[in-house]
Amino acid sequence: MSDTVFTTPADAEAAFYDALARADLETMMSVWSADDEVVCVHPNGPRIVGLAAVRELWRQIFASGMRLSVRTSHTVVSETLVLAVHNVLEEVAEAGSEPAGPPIVATNVYARGGNGWRMVMHHASPTPNLMDIQVQGTPRVVH
Amino acid sequence: MSDTVFTTPADAEAAFYDALARADLETMMSVWSADDEVVCVHPNGPRIVGLAAVRELWRQIFASGMRLSVRTSHTVVSETLVLAVHNVLEEVAEAGSEPAGPPIVATNVYARGGNGWRMVMHHASPTPNLMDIQVQGTPRVVH
Repeated sequence: MSDTVFTTPADAEAAFYDALARADLETMMSVWSADDEVVCVHPNGPRIVGLAAVRELWRQIFASGMRLSVRTSHTVVSETLVLAVHNVLEEVAEAGSEPAGPPIVATNVYARGGNGWRMVMHHASPTPNLMDIQVQGTPRVVH
Repeated sequence: MSDTVFTTPADAEAAFYDALARADLETMMSVWSADDEVVCVHPNGPRIVGLAAVRELWRQIFASGMRLSVRTSHTVVSETLVLAVHNVLEEVAEAGSEPAGPPIVATNVYARGGNGWRMVMHHASPTPNLMDIQVQGTPRVVH
């Protein structure tokens, strides 16, 4: 799968979430750029930098046996000819279940190189329960 | 301040963190793009989309009286002529204090328009305490 060419950022994004759902490490890594100092942040996780570290992170996640289905929505896009940023809301469910809890927000960054579009950053973080926000009325955490 | 022109993404980023430290709403909003569907996510916060909502978020944060000093480091950059992504680690301290706790990871996205570089996305999330990671040995949260 490593010679797959994604002709649009959306194609790369679809392959990313498909590889995640199938816990397919080779397909997952075919989505990532080999040329860049890639960055991956999972919800509540540390920042992981570099392709080898990112691969090891996914290997551990997939080896854990957890199977997750992610449906993305409300994509906000900033795209140029060679760099694209997609900010999405992810509804995450364990395989066979309905999504539980508030969405994850993810910023996905893709770069176009000689072999098409590849992911260079994935930054995901949990969002709070909307009920908490409504009760409290103001943003809960500052920067 | 709204006619300030930032000639590089780094200039816009410096102004962003300076405005944050000074709780200066007008300077903060001069950093943000008025042209784009801007996105702002604070640590553990919801996704905020749109300039009016982002302004209101900062207004509330600054009105709370909290004064924060942020030192960024370990920037990973993806830049083109018109779009730039900076992923940074933020050491956050209350004014007059030393930084406490693990860093925040932030993805800052800037776009270049007719009036220079402006921020279009700020996505920040907490990282775990490294001691927890070392004890546990594997990533704690999957996506």
